[in-house]
Amino acid sequence: MEAMERMERVDVRAVTSALDEFWSQQVIGEANGNLFKVAKGIGSTNWHKHDDEDEVFFVYKGRLTIQLRTGNVELSEGDMFIVPRGVEHCPRADDEVHLLLVGPTVTSTREGGKPDWSRK
Amino acid sequence: MEAMERMERVDVRAVTSALDEFWSQQVIGEANGNLFKVAKGIGSTNWHKHDDEDEVFFVYKGRLTIQLRTGNVELSEGDMFIVPRGVEHCPRADDEVHLLLVGPTVTSTREGGKPDWSRK
Repeated sequence: MEAMERMERVDVRAVTSALDEFWSQQVIGEANGNLFKVAKGIGSTNWHKHDDEDEVFFVYKGRLTIQLRTGNVELSEGDMFIVPRGVEHCPRADDEVHLLLVGPTVTSTREGGKPDWSRK
Repeated sequence: MEAMERMERVDVRAVTSALDEFWSQQVIGEANGNLFKVAKGIGSTNWHKHDDEDEVFFVYKGRLTIQLRTGNVELSEGDMFIVPRGVEHCPRADDEVHLLLVGPTVTSTREGGKPDWSRK
């Protein structure tokens, strides 16, 4: 893909709002070996970890609780949180949350079905 | 630095609002070989390119015009735009804009002074 073809503005909120499945990530961009992904979430995933990648969360709308073995981290709109590789975590949202995620791979896709860690 | 020590919520808007210099990037996180940085901007930079890294822009507040040799891209709050490596660009903001930037290096710091591409 040519660089010029990739250069498009992405309305992050609109793309996220249009998603019709929870916890499935949609790629909106790629740069420097990382994917930029959006997802909607509600309810809880299962506890899991990613051994080979850090996972970066940005909350675009709503609230997200990232449960860690050391305690919970409460995120609101505008917050960033990085879960380092190898650290067990379990995201939970009481109400629908919209997220931007950054990392080298897609860990949950519509096509690939739900991973073991996803409940809903 | 131990992983656990790094795990802190970052209020992106608050950190950006507290910046007291334009176009100087402050690092708020590191993951997968990339830095997550915030900056305030107003006015215009000079035309420049980064040969070895893509530059990812997220507009957190305000509006940003990314001037390209092929035309302007107008970004509003909530928008993402990726300038691929090697592509000349010149960001411009008529009013103060707050940005999240992602890339492998810091291209402008308070300590390092302004780079050639920064006017203000």
